[in-house]
Amino acid sequence: MLSFRKNLENIPIYDGVEKNYRVKINANESTLNLPPLVEERVFGRLSHLAFNRYPNEEYYDLIEQIAKNFSVDKSQILLGNGSSEIIEKVFQVFGGEGKKIIFPQPSFSMYKIYAKVAEAESVIFNLDKKFDLNVDEFIKKIREENVNLAVICNPNNPTGNILSVEDIEKILSSIDCTLLLDEAYIEFHGKSAVNLVKKYKNLIVARTFSKAYGLAGARVGYMISSKEITDNVKKIFMPYHMNSLSLAVADIVFQMRDEFVPRIQIAVSERERMIKRLSEIKNLEVFPSRTNFILIRHEKADELNEFFESLGIGVRFFKGNESLKNCLRISIGTRAENDEVFDAMKNFLEEI
Amino acid sequence: MLSFRKNLENIPIYDGVEKNYRVKINANESTLNLPPLVEERVFGRLSHLAFNRYPNEEYYDLIEQIAKNFSVDKSQILLGNGSSEIIEKVFQVFGGEGKKIIFPQPSFSMYKIYAKVAEAESVIFNLDKKFDLNVDEFIKKIREENVNLAVICNPNNPTGNILSVEDIEKILSSIDCTLLLDEAYIEFHGKSAVNLVKKYKNLIVARTFSKAYGLAGARVGYMISSKEITDNVKKIFMPYHMNSLSLAVADIVFQMRDEFVPRIQIAVSERERMIKRLSEIKNLEVFPSRTNFILIRHEKADELNEFFESLGIGVRFFKGNESLKNCLRISIGTRAENDEVFDAMKNFLEEI
Repeated sequence: MLSFRKNLENIPIYDGVEKNYRVKINANESTLNLPPLVEERVFGRLSHLAFNRYPNEEYYDLIEQIAKNFSVDKSQILLGNGSSEIIEKVFQVFGGEGKKIIFPQPSFSMYKIYAKVAEAESVIFNLDKKFDLNVDEFIKKIREENVNLAVICNPNNPTGNILSVEDIEKILSSIDCTLLLDEAYIEFHGKSAVNLVKKYKNLIVARTFSKAYGLAGARVGYMISSKEITDNVKKIFMPYHMNSLSLAVADIVFQMRDEFVPRIQIAVSERERMIKRLSEIKNLEVFPSRTNFILIRHEKADELNEFFESLGIGVRFFKGNESLKNCLRISIGTRAENDEVFDAMKNFLEEI
Repeated sequence: MLSFRKNLENIPIYDGVEKNYRVKINANESTLNLPPLVEERVFGRLSHLAFNRYPNEEYYDLIEQIAKNFSVDKSQILLGNGSSEIIEKVFQVFGGEGKKIIFPQPSFSMYKIYAKVAEAESVIFNLDKKFDLNVDEFIKKIREENVNLAVICNPNNPTGNILSVEDIEKILSSIDCTLLLDEAYIEFHGKSAVNLVKKYKNLIVARTFSKAYGLAGARVGYMISSKEITDNVKKIFMPYHMNSLSLAVADIVFQMRDEFVPRIQIAVSERERMIKRLSEIKNLEVFPSRTNFILIRHEKADELNEFFESLGIGVRFFKGNESLKNCLRISIGTRAENDEVFDAMKNFLEEI
């Protein structure tokens, strides 16, 4: 009787409440809530908000601020409910029957779901053993497969490694299709390719307030691209798709982004400290990272994950994912949390 | 070089900042911000919110509360960024190439855009001269055209009139396809068909916090349906598509919804007062309404709209829409605003 769209058959349902972990380092969230000065201004602003009115200036104020920061035109910026919505809509616009979307593996696990929702064909490009991307092979595959959209997460989630701006430009100058560059973790690395938007009309850079700016709860992301692309993506954004509370908060966070610099620096130095310490654990493989998380590999990853669970520590385990076999991803927490995680891991792995 | 999805060609771009009207009665928003008691609790809750964490319990708390209120299972409720996102996703799920979606005309103007985005074929069903829906003809058309999704807005926007619960059940019992019932304005009418969800697995009821509950800025809506339908719609909702600020606010508003009853009653009595007064203006046609707005028709609607503009009063004029020729839609404002609107209209129309 009920007839659902065909492509839904192979799409899984994401559902269920997450556990309340005592130490939550499974989602690459910021470990700290709003900085006090930011919080004060956020609540000042919210206390004047017209909850009863549809969002209006809030949307354009934030766009204007972002455009100014990147020295691009306002028409080149679009906002989304997290960079997730940006990615979803970009896949929609460049997808459809017969269209191919290429992305590396392992990378952000949602790419293949968004491709299915967009009724596009996924072309998987395998990273090498060190999780690096072979640029020449990637370009070759894009051409051979006549791909319509190429996607790169840089730095890459969940591996933590990077592609240089030079390599990204090499790709851009060698392909005709659109490149979506997901820079969700770029603030922890510092070397964005966003300026290439001024040179290449087929580049889309997606950014988020969820990671370095600690606003995962507010769901705000944005994209920077050419007007030709934003004009088309805009068509499938609902009117009033963003809410004025999150927009007002993101606007203040963007204005006060200097307040987040020390936090980013601490996350980076904690990451380096953890990489160094973890590297001393026997039989544990630790991957280099330019993000706020670290990927590790160990034969006993499954048991280690269960041990963490028993301690109330939530990490990301990639069960059943062949390209990430025996891998765990650990977000950087507070110094005390990081020490607890290290001690637990060391004791557990050296005893078994 | 850039290759966009085919269906985008005929989709317009919605864009641009709205004017700052002195009297804003163009979007059927609530004329009042949060009730003081609600505001106090909202800010208490927001002050404890983890902005840095992805939404989690906030989502399921609100679902649980809504499910309990309607005596349905939690699996039968989905939340969206306004009922807009609910409608968009439902169209997506029941759309696709070769699928037909029927909706009345005139009705909510976004239906045809959502149908285009969903790559479905729109089947337009014309309302009669009084903007009523001929139920038998509607059923006949659904069958003849082999429609996959039927949509009804009840009370209807922008006409304000209603379909009885009996008529809705008659439709449901006569069709095989899914029926999406958009009850955005139901609180001003009071006679919801939501209980039919327990009897008909092909019914989806969409609701919003934007109108009677004065939360247009927060973008929160929900749908109530069968598990079979929610399971499929869920598949194309992004993880974390809702933000925790809006969820927390909506949760409190739903808990304290009794605080909104007096406001709804005042809007209803102001609507009746305005209908009565407007009916005395010569050559002005006033349509009955069970919503927080009134549709009027006058030969000089275009000039009247311009006159309102010149006074800083924003109303909704349906320029270029044949089915709403010479019509204006006026939201119910405060008593003072309503009086100002009436006086302006009376003077203008009786002088020309």
